[in-house]
Amino acid sequence: MIHDQPFIAGDWGTSNLRLFLCQGDTVLDRATGPGVAACAGKLETVLFDAIAPWTDRHGILPVILCGMVGSSIGWAEAPYLECPADTADLAASLLRLKARGHIVGIVPGLTCTSPLGGPDVMRGEETQILGALAARPELAEGRHLLCLPGTHSKWVLLEEGRVTRFMTAMAGELFAVLRQHSVLGRGTEGHAPVQGPAFSQGLARALSAPASLPHLLFETRSRQLRAGMDAADAPSFLSGMVIGGDVAGALAAMGDKVAADVPVTLVAAPALAALYAEALTMLGRPSHSLDGDGQSLAGLRSIIAHAAPLFAGDDRS
Amino acid sequence: MIHDQPFIAGDWGTSNLRLFLCQGDTVLDRATGPGVAACAGKLETVLFDAIAPWTDRHGILPVILCGMVGSSIGWAEAPYLECPADTADLAASLLRLKARGHIVGIVPGLTCTSPLGGPDVMRGEETQILGALAARPELAEGRHLLCLPGTHSKWVLLEEGRVTRFMTAMAGELFAVLRQHSVLGRGTEGHAPVQGPAFSQGLARALSAPASLPHLLFETRSRQLRAGMDAADAPSFLSGMVIGGDVAGALAAMGDKVAADVPVTLVAAPALAALYAEALTMLGRPSHSLDGDGQSLAGLRSIIAHAAPLFAGDDRS
Repeated sequence: MIHDQPFIAGDWGTSNLRLFLCQGDTVLDRATGPGVAACAGKLETVLFDAIAPWTDRHGILPVILCGMVGSSIGWAEAPYLECPADTADLAASLLRLKARGHIVGIVPGLTCTSPLGGPDVMRGEETQILGALAARPELAEGRHLLCLPGTHSKWVLLEEGRVTRFMTAMAGELFAVLRQHSVLGRGTEGHAPVQGPAFSQGLARALSAPASLPHLLFETRSRQLRAGMDAADAPSFLSGMVIGGDVAGALAAMGDKVAADVPVTLVAAPALAALYAEALTMLGRPSHSLDGDGQSLAGLRSIIAHAAPLFAGDDRS
Repeated sequence: MIHDQPFIAGDWGTSNLRLFLCQGDTVLDRATGPGVAACAGKLETVLFDAIAPWTDRHGILPVILCGMVGSSIGWAEAPYLECPADTADLAASLLRLKARGHIVGIVPGLTCTSPLGGPDVMRGEETQILGALAARPELAEGRHLLCLPGTHSKWVLLEEGRVTRFMTAMAGELFAVLRQHSVLGRGTEGHAPVQGPAFSQGLARALSAPASLPHLLFETRSRQLRAGMDAADAPSFLSGMVIGGDVAGALAAMGDKVAADVPVTLVAAPALAALYAEALTMLGRPSHSLDGDGQSLAGLRSIIAHAAPLFAGDDRS
């Protein structure tokens, strides 16, 4: 039975590999490695080198992986699963490989028609969502809005424990490219964005006219030239505008799909969640946060619990 | 009299210097040189090297310059003039330098509180606007909306020939940084944006939900993954979304300040003007275009006509 056996769970994104040797709810050991982007054509070798200490000791182990490892730039492409989808659907759709005698399951991403009417995709976040569902069983009942902020923020509608729709925002990446490569970053090098008055002012500006975000963004520059904004405050102001634009745009498209008094669940590192919580508060929406760290592992555990026969079946072959 | 004398007019922006030797309405000669960004600390030398053939022949000549040459990274800072402002106001506020026996007039930029309620600035475009006013005298009567699209698009409200308010959009620069530095450009290198079905589709997407632009932008990626969009079409689609976001956001903030049947005046190169005209048409706004090339020179001529006593006065000193 899989619950008694050790297994390996891995979150293998573009930039990082995080591996866990698990047994039941216990993490026996951890390891890290390079992201998918740095391992083109040699993912199998990188993985088995990283887990060699564990396989040397435990022999053949089931392996379950999520993230960009299942993308076109990964090890093998795990096709996107159409929403609505839940833990059982994801477990049933694992891409199953055999490698060096081990069974490796790769979690598929999800796809849907977004609330804006276009195609949307996620890969890796679906596993974090399952982790959030495991951590907060109340999310499995009724309708809930989840936000996983980041490079590409994901806003997710959960209905009775199933992901029914979601939408992506260019949030963290928009901030980064404007900061590093546009006039908005000029002279602000070395000043990190922080949660404070300049951030709040940026939020308020974005929320005042979200349909004019391309115009408001320029205030990051014009306020330094004409309104006495300190260069040290500009990155915080810009961050506030980008996050305000993300939150306002997502609520405009999805806000009416969940009762206004149901807290938005923010799945993120606490500092990032606090920025989004401030934006939601400004718009009158309650929120609560779940530390993003650990949700991938929790989600992988949920999937392997559902997928146990898949791995067990192979032990008999 | 200045109208009989040759004079030198120059548009000196961040990236380019364009110089004209003029007499009345005739351009006697042209020259080009490096932009302000490449000339830190040696602008005077660069200028006089460039105009040496003209001063060798004609002696002391009045010089009038517009653009970033008057900014903090330029030759001397010409303070922003507060709106409302017209040709006479700009002429009266020329920053006047003496250099090597010549009088050099630098056109100030403009500042205002934008229709969005924040500070805004322009430097260089004020001279193009005066050129448009000279080319289209009907713009000097009633209310008109001008759009000068570009790296930082400017939307300008003209009332009875005066610039009363304006707003800036991060348009061309937003497109460039997303294209060159974000995931939205991945795999699309070498494909230039063109006006065609993919551009129109991007426009329509942006206009469908302008408050969700950070989310819609991601469709540049997701449509390639899920909707069969060819990588060659992605830059055009992205361009459509950025221009759609610019036009929708500007009209949301300023569209009601001008009668809906008064054409928006686009001041730009014809190919760029056509992209903005398509967006305006989709939103039911008529437009007409004025080739941006040459408007700076026309504006400088308008200013020097008003400022003639300023230069003439010095000839007597």
